[in-house]
Amino acid sequence: MVKIVECVPNFSEGRNKKTIEVIYNAIKKHKDVELLDFTPDADHNRTDITIVGSPEKIKATVMDIALKCVELIDMNKHKGEHPRMGAIDVVPFIPISDVTMEECVELANDFAKEFSKKTNIPCFLYEEAAKREDRRNLADVRRGEYEGLKEEIGKNPEKIPDYGPNKMHPTAGATAVGARFFLIAYNVNLGTDNLDIAKKIAKAVRHSSGGYRYVKAMGFEIKERKIVQVSMNLVNYQKTSIFRVFETIKNEAERYGVPVIGSEIVGLVPLEALVDVGDHYLKLEDFKIDQVLEKKLLDAKK
Amino acid sequence: MVKIVECVPNFSEGRNKKTIEVIYNAIKKHKDVELLDFTPDADHNRTDITIVGSPEKIKATVMDIALKCVELIDMNKHKGEHPRMGAIDVVPFIPISDVTMEECVELANDFAKEFSKKTNIPCFLYEEAAKREDRRNLADVRRGEYEGLKEEIGKNPEKIPDYGPNKMHPTAGATAVGARFFLIAYNVNLGTDNLDIAKKIAKAVRHSSGGYRYVKAMGFEIKERKIVQVSMNLVNYQKTSIFRVFETIKNEAERYGVPVIGSEIVGLVPLEALVDVGDHYLKLEDFKIDQVLEKKLLDAKK
Repeated sequence: MVKIVECVPNFSEGRNKKTIEVIYNAIKKHKDVELLDFTPDADHNRTDITIVGSPEKIKATVMDIALKCVELIDMNKHKGEHPRMGAIDVVPFIPISDVTMEECVELANDFAKEFSKKTNIPCFLYEEAAKREDRRNLADVRRGEYEGLKEEIGKNPEKIPDYGPNKMHPTAGATAVGARFFLIAYNVNLGTDNLDIAKKIAKAVRHSSGGYRYVKAMGFEIKERKIVQVSMNLVNYQKTSIFRVFETIKNEAERYGVPVIGSEIVGLVPLEALVDVGDHYLKLEDFKIDQVLEKKLLDAKK
Repeated sequence: MVKIVECVPNFSEGRNKKTIEVIYNAIKKHKDVELLDFTPDADHNRTDITIVGSPEKIKATVMDIALKCVELIDMNKHKGEHPRMGAIDVVPFIPISDVTMEECVELANDFAKEFSKKTNIPCFLYEEAAKREDRRNLADVRRGEYEGLKEEIGKNPEKIPDYGPNKMHPTAGATAVGARFFLIAYNVNLGTDNLDIAKKIAKAVRHSSGGYRYVKAMGFEIKERKIVQVSMNLVNYQKTSIFRVFETIKNEAERYGVPVIGSEIVGLVPLEALVDVGDHYLKLEDFKIDQVLEKKLLDAKK
C-alpha cells in the first residue's frame, strides 16, 4: 500500500488566461503528482485544482502553486461571487490511501508554517486542522472575506492567525489551510414532484437536524425530469456510509408511498467507499481492498 | 483509459528451485509488466503465474517465460497430480480494461503462431480462442495429458494442432493457448449444516443444470464452521453479475428457511465487477468507472 494524499487548492483567478497558464504549468512540471482536475471558473473568478500524490510531493507541488499565486494575483483588484480572502484562498489536505487524518493535519501545519515564513501571509487552520473550535468551519474562518478581514486583522484578537504575521499581505491577503475527509457529492432521486417530501427526507438524514453525523442534505426540485432530489454531501464516508444513507432515504420515502428511482455520485469517489457498498449488500467476509485488481496494479506502479 | 490484459500461464515445475528462480527472473526483468502472483506448488509440481500489463508487453513477457520453460523442463521426467501436457502447459489471455475479447483471441493466435514457429511445439487454441467447438473446453484439449497426446498426435486427425507441427516436442510436449474472461471465485455461505440444501441451490444457479449461463457451482460442507457453502466460479461477470447470483441464492435459501450468512470473493476481482454491485443496489444513474479515484490515478500513471 502506498501513501496517497489529495489536495484541492483554490486560487482567486478564473479569468486571466496568462496567470492561469503559469499556474497550470507549475503543476505540470511535477511529474510524480497527478492533476485530476483544473477548472477555471470565470463567473466566480476562481480556479479549483485537484492533485493527488504522496504527502511530500503534494506539499512541494501546492507550495509552488501558492507561491505563483502570491506573485501573480492582486486581491485589491479581485472581484467574484465566491467567498474568498486570499490569492491562494484555501489549501485542504485529504487522506486517500494509507494516510491518517493526523498525518494530514501535520501536513497542513507544516505547509502553513513554511508558506507563511516564505511569504508573510497569515494562515488560518480549519476543519480537522483547526486549533480552535470556532475555526473548524471554513465559512466562519472566511467570514467578512478579503475586505472584512483586512479591516479586522491586527485589531480583533479573535482574528490572530495560526501562522504568520498578524496583518494582511498587501496583495495576497490571507490563506485558509486545512485537513478534511474526502467529500462525496451524492444525490438520491425520488419518483415524485412533491418537493416537500424531499425536504422532509433531507431533514431526517442531515446532521444539523438530527440525522447522520457526516451528512449535509437539502431537498431540490429537478424540473426537467418532474422529480425531486435529496442532494447531499457525505463528509466522512468511512463513518457515515453511502449505503446506510441510501437505505434510510429509501425507508423514509416508503413512508410517503414514494419510490427511490435512482441515485447519483457526482464527481470522484474513493474505491474504499464502493467496496463498503459491495461489502454490505453481498455480506462479504474478510474482503480486502487490495483484492481489487486495479488497486493492486496501482500499488505495484509506485 | 489504458489497455490492460492479464495472462495466467502455468508451467510444469513446482519443485526445482533453480528452474523456478530462472523463470521468476525472466519475468522480473520486464519492468512494465506487473507480477501479481507467482505460486510454485510442489504437490502438483506446477507453478501458476499472474501477470498484468499492456497487450504487447504481456505477449513479450509470456514469450520469455515460455522459451525458458522449453529450455529447462523435460516432460519425460515430469510427475504431478494436475492434468498437464507441456512444459509451458497453458497460456490464457484475459481482457481486463479497455480490451475486447476479440483482441485477446488475436493475441492468443499471434502468440501461438510465433511460439510454435520458434520452438516447434504444437499449440492448441482453447476457450474463446478455440477454432473448433470441441476444443473450447480446456479439459477436452488436455484429455490424455502429455503421455496420451504423445501416443495420439500424428495418428488421430482429431489431434492436429492449430499451430506448429503435427507431433510432440521431444521434451516440452504441447501447449494450450487460450483467451477467456476473468474468473471470479465466489462463495455464498448458508446458515445451516444441511449439505443437501447447498447442493440443491448450486444446481439451481449453475449453467449445466439450467441456471445462469456463466456460473459453475457446487455445494460443500464447511465442517469447522458447521455450515454449508455454494462454491462458484463466475466465468463471465459482465454477463452474469455477482449481485444477480447472490440475490438468486438468497431467494432460493429463503424457500428452505435458511439465511445467507455471508459471501466470499476469493482472490482478485476486477473493479468493474464491484462497480456493477454498487450500481445495482444504489440504483446509480450514469456512474462511470473512471469516477473511481484509484482508477483515474491508475490511468494517469500509464
